[in-house]
Amino acid sequence: MNGTTVDEKRLARDFDAIAACSECDPSIGYSRPTFSPAWRRARDYVIAQAQSIGCTVWVDAAGNVHARPATLPRDSTAWLCGSHIDSVPTGGRFDGVVGVLVALEALRTAPDAPMELIIFAEEEGTTFSLGMVGSRAWAGTLAPEELQNLRNSQGLDYASAGVAHGVSVERLAVERLRPERYRGLIETHVEQGPGMWNAGVSVAVVTAIAGRRQYICSLAGEANHAGATAMKDRRDALAGAARAVSALEDLGREMARSQEAAVVTVGRMDVHPNSVNVIAGTVTFTIDLRARSDEMLAHGDESLRNIVSRIAAERRLGCSLSATEELPVVQLDKGICSLLRDAARRQGIDAPDVASGALHDAAILAPFLPTAMLFVASKGGISHNPAEYSRIEDVACAAQIVAAAVSSA
Amino acid sequence: MNGTTVDEKRLARDFDAIAACSECDPSIGYSRPTFSPAWRRARDYVIAQAQSIGCTVWVDAAGNVHARPATLPRDSTAWLCGSHIDSVPTGGRFDGVVGVLVALEALRTAPDAPMELIIFAEEEGTTFSLGMVGSRAWAGTLAPEELQNLRNSQGLDYASAGVAHGVSVERLAVERLRPERYRGLIETHVEQGPGMWNAGVSVAVVTAIAGRRQYICSLAGEANHAGATAMKDRRDALAGAARAVSALEDLGREMARSQEAAVVTVGRMDVHPNSVNVIAGTVTFTIDLRARSDEMLAHGDESLRNIVSRIAAERRLGCSLSATEELPVVQLDKGICSLLRDAARRQGIDAPDVASGALHDAAILAPFLPTAMLFVASKGGISHNPAEYSRIEDVACAAQIVAAAVSSA
Repeated sequence: MNGTTVDEKRLARDFDAIAACSECDPSIGYSRPTFSPAWRRARDYVIAQAQSIGCTVWVDAAGNVHARPATLPRDSTAWLCGSHIDSVPTGGRFDGVVGVLVALEALRTAPDAPMELIIFAEEEGTTFSLGMVGSRAWAGTLAPEELQNLRNSQGLDYASAGVAHGVSVERLAVERLRPERYRGLIETHVEQGPGMWNAGVSVAVVTAIAGRRQYICSLAGEANHAGATAMKDRRDALAGAARAVSALEDLGREMARSQEAAVVTVGRMDVHPNSVNVIAGTVTFTIDLRARSDEMLAHGDESLRNIVSRIAAERRLGCSLSATEELPVVQLDKGICSLLRDAARRQGIDAPDVASGALHDAAILAPFLPTAMLFVASKGGISHNPAEYSRIEDVACAAQIVAAAVSSA
Repeated sequence: MNGTTVDEKRLARDFDAIAACSECDPSIGYSRPTFSPAWRRARDYVIAQAQSIGCTVWVDAAGNVHARPATLPRDSTAWLCGSHIDSVPTGGRFDGVVGVLVALEALRTAPDAPMELIIFAEEEGTTFSLGMVGSRAWAGTLAPEELQNLRNSQGLDYASAGVAHGVSVERLAVERLRPERYRGLIETHVEQGPGMWNAGVSVAVVTAIAGRRQYICSLAGEANHAGATAMKDRRDALAGAARAVSALEDLGREMARSQEAAVVTVGRMDVHPNSVNVIAGTVTFTIDLRARSDEMLAHGDESLRNIVSRIAAERRLGCSLSATEELPVVQLDKGICSLLRDAARRQGIDAPDVASGALHDAAILAPFLPTAMLFVASKGGISHNPAEYSRIEDVACAAQIVAAAVSSA
């Protein structure tokens, strides 16, 4: 390697600089919704840092930032390394940011390596109600029209809201991902689960990403007076939804007995009319199902449909359930996994294999590019929460591995 | 009686006129939040009708409207008859309105009877988060300072928002209810339950009003990643709240086995951060408990506290539960109940005794004035819902009984 070594203090300053770009006070968390001023300041910080070490920077038509050493022609084959800087509302300091700063630090450390940093836009999906929009649109799995149907809470669509940040529906087809320009993608991310931290593992090689199915479900009963309607005469949508949430939790626990990483979550619930003295007329809730085998996903899908329709029928509730997303299990590239494992070993680090329960931009690009991931341990497994924490030395360790891997291959 | 007889067509026109005063389209319901332009138009309609038959009208410092025949001095003893015209969001055409229009029609029918119409302000409690504000403030059970702590969704307090509609914190003490000026209160209301409709009863005499306790409960878990957090590692506030809602429903059913009218309702639930891919960190929900004996209320109170704390402890969730209201069971005045029963019999109507599951302004005034109520049948028991329906002939029947009762006694 021609460059300096990884610098923990410099990395810590980078984390502080990005944490300062937030819509809310650190006491309640870090909020960087896609295309917000806070998000833009964080993006500009990374761009300025990349330019200061001699990178050429551009934004593709999907809104993703790319930075390559100016010495590396844009059409030559390079490693793609990065992650995202948008956050969930009141999230933590590390989710996404780790992968971007590992790529930045690897660029600083190995300036001659064939490497391109990427910041994917709207990974979380909490601003435009769909995750990994930047990688999907760049990979071509999301059509330009679909970008115009994704709206934020102000009612602006992704294409319009993104214009000021480089998004261009017209250029999308021309600027699509060209796989021949990349040797592969390496995304570093925090684990977001407690496994590595509890096992004393700093960095791990991710060999697979769980599949995910998401659903939206509505139960319709009858809004009625909470005082004058006898228990036996009720069609209470919230009481029905409560039974469904419990049965879905039981399903998740049953699935986890045969595959620990299988999970079922109801994270969102909206009640109507949502009043202390009115029996709920309608309740809408989401279901998020993840598993590490497509068979387990199919089992979960069938079971949750049965749960919801059984409860609705028992309670004379109207019921609608629709799938809003269906992503299969992704196996990551064995060759890059070996490359990362070997690079770690050369640094004296033992990086065991793990699987990812969370989805990442890597899952979107894996069908198009050889793709792998590194995980950094998360204290207590806490994520999407201001208490999220990873050790700076573990992040530095990941940067060292990435720099070594892209320099060696 | 010196006057005309009750006129169903005129009553029907009154209902249409008030239904036209709504913030939303009739297809989704009738909304008249207290102090809204729609609420004010409805109030002005009743005032204009009362003035057109020779009434003097004034608004007391709590925001309640009073109308007396100009021939009846303000300090002479009269019957008080009325109800409310504010509504829950997307409510029905009859709740509250029936009692106001019965009083108006009784005034038209028996213009010489010693009777004063009243429209109580903010009965529903969905605008300022507390029910029966107008009657409480007039009766003196709600202090002037408390009026300034009740806020609507725009953040305005009751006193400030009500200034344009006659509310005056300064005059509240002087204009308090003077029991010596009233012979008693007769409030007519829709049943809001299916009992009378199913039994073929048009009008009934209410002998008691169920007591009510209301609570707000928060469960605090840990917001975390829905994909990366194993089922066993979760502290999911929504999964805990779902178990609580089910256990509270079971409690309501158990109580109803010994006292049919006992009910437990969770009508409102707010989830934070309420996102498809984040395990819920905090859930806040309300509990509404009603019963027809104070012993049953005490049993419900103890049981629901046990349920919530047991579930929170089992699931390592933080828990806070506080009572927001505690109203005892109210026995209505036996003398007025007889008077109404006799007046009905003279009209050839059999008005059986019932109890009220819902609370009414009558429950607030009962400790201060001899108080009774008439119920009009509700089709299917549906209330707080645009499908709410009562027969115009049953409303006319109630008006006939009220007019006869206040003329005879």
